[in-house]
Amino acid sequence: MAVVADAIEAELDRLLPVASGPQARLHEAMRYAVLGGGKRLRPMLVWTSAELFGVAPAAAIRAGAAVELLHAYSLIHDDLPSMDDAALRRGRPSCHLAFDEATAILAGDALQPLAYEALARPDYGVDAAQRCELVLGLTRAAGAAGMCGGQMIDLQAQRQTLSLDEITVLQGLKTGALIAFACDAGAILGRAGEVERAALAGYAHDLGLAFQIKDDFLDRFGDSAVTGKHGGRDQDVGKATFVGLLGEHGARVKLDELRSQASARLDIFGARSMVMRQLLDFVIDRQS
Amino acid sequence: MAVVADAIEAELDRLLPVASGPQARLHEAMRYAVLGGGKRLRPMLVWTSAELFGVAPAAAIRAGAAVELLHAYSLIHDDLPSMDDAALRRGRPSCHLAFDEATAILAGDALQPLAYEALARPDYGVDAAQRCELVLGLTRAAGAAGMCGGQMIDLQAQRQTLSLDEITVLQGLKTGALIAFACDAGAILGRAGEVERAALAGYAHDLGLAFQIKDDFLDRFGDSAVTGKHGGRDQDVGKATFVGLLGEHGARVKLDELRSQASARLDIFGARSMVMRQLLDFVIDRQS
Repeated sequence: MAVVADAIEAELDRLLPVASGPQARLHEAMRYAVLGGGKRLRPMLVWTSAELFGVAPAAAIRAGAAVELLHAYSLIHDDLPSMDDAALRRGRPSCHLAFDEATAILAGDALQPLAYEALARPDYGVDAAQRCELVLGLTRAAGAAGMCGGQMIDLQAQRQTLSLDEITVLQGLKTGALIAFACDAGAILGRAGEVERAALAGYAHDLGLAFQIKDDFLDRFGDSAVTGKHGGRDQDVGKATFVGLLGEHGARVKLDELRSQASARLDIFGARSMVMRQLLDFVIDRQS
Repeated sequence: MAVVADAIEAELDRLLPVASGPQARLHEAMRYAVLGGGKRLRPMLVWTSAELFGVAPAAAIRAGAAVELLHAYSLIHDDLPSMDDAALRRGRPSCHLAFDEATAILAGDALQPLAYEALARPDYGVDAAQRCELVLGLTRAAGAAGMCGGQMIDLQAQRQTLSLDEITVLQGLKTGALIAFACDAGAILGRAGEVERAALAGYAHDLGLAFQIKDDFLDRFGDSAVTGKHGGRDQDVGKATFVGLLGEHGARVKLDELRSQASARLDIFGARSMVMRQLLDFVIDRQS
């Protein structure tokens, strides 16, 4: 996995503009936000799903980098004072504190098209129909029916108490849609059949939900020196969370259920899905 | 032209999500920002350039709507308190005042992928290679080497005095890149030859520059009841402008030069370019 992580890092570095010219400050902020560490879970999901279908490594790495560029933009904007007002991200000052608010907004605004550009470029080496399908999938995961829609509901959730079903919808949009696209990207590149694609979608759904339940856990019980962000904020603002609604024990039971269910969905891939199962364990057992 | 304007309005309405569901507020803000009037100059440019090459009307309308969605997002973010802090846009409260800052940021964030999605969708009816080329052109006009880069330089320009060359670079990125793409979109759809594409690029460059000089004029001398935004702000913040550097007379001379030069570039298209010449007059002679 370390080899893949290095390849993703190198691709991100190549895709990002170098910090020069009159808009150098913008480029610096983009690089700061993207190259500042992070788990790289989403590119790993692209990589592992692509591997199931024998996709060329370079094609998987490019798509993984595009997903990570989009994820990095969303973190910058989520952290803004008018949004979650977060001071710490990946153990460092968030982008609007390291630079300033206007620069942070612009850095996110410029990372978003860079993600689609990476997929649409003719030098990508996959055919135009697949490039369009990837762009389409990523825009849908990003837009009003995906990440932005989820963040809108999340902002309103601070003024009302959501039910478990409502939180599940919220998180399905806010974090689930991009995780689902990450898994689907490998299937698109690998021209997967309907059955395999549906199995991957089921796995992505369970993993996305488990990811968010674990995130709530870490926000409530995690060590900020390990997580790299300040915890307890959900409670401070009175936000309903999975852990708050299910209780600590109930949340652990749910995580175990999701682990079994997601794992079973991979059975049709046999031994080839070992790394996908490891990613599932990583998401559920992580401490940051 | 009224028929085209109506077709663009209808296409924007179809592409935008209806205001329903738990994220209805986001959809409302997107619709408010896009459907709130505006000159629709960029879609008109797509339309007229596409018409030069006999492109099907529906294909031109879709591309024009995509460009307008991107333009609308950029206006929302430009108006934010940490950016230009503008209270009035198209004669109405700017999006962050009509809604709130977080919702306005999200509305912009969601309009951007909607623009690319409109171009990448298989129901667009143009082949995948062209759809990729359109997505690519629009992402480049939007990103760090286009609009976002220009806005970064513009923000910094409030703390330093720019030369005429520097302002020309700034505006070439901030407004010129998207205007250039609008003209190029017609050429892409029409599979135009090198010579014709270069002529259009020259026209777009001149028109973009004229557009900005006229904007500076209207900011300084225009009537806010007609322009729909508060004027005089450039002077207030001590920002260098074309009018400030060239003087009122010099700016008028420059506009005349650009009109002649842009017009001459259209000569290779003969009588077919009449509407493009009218758009040039519209840009230079407008009062809002």
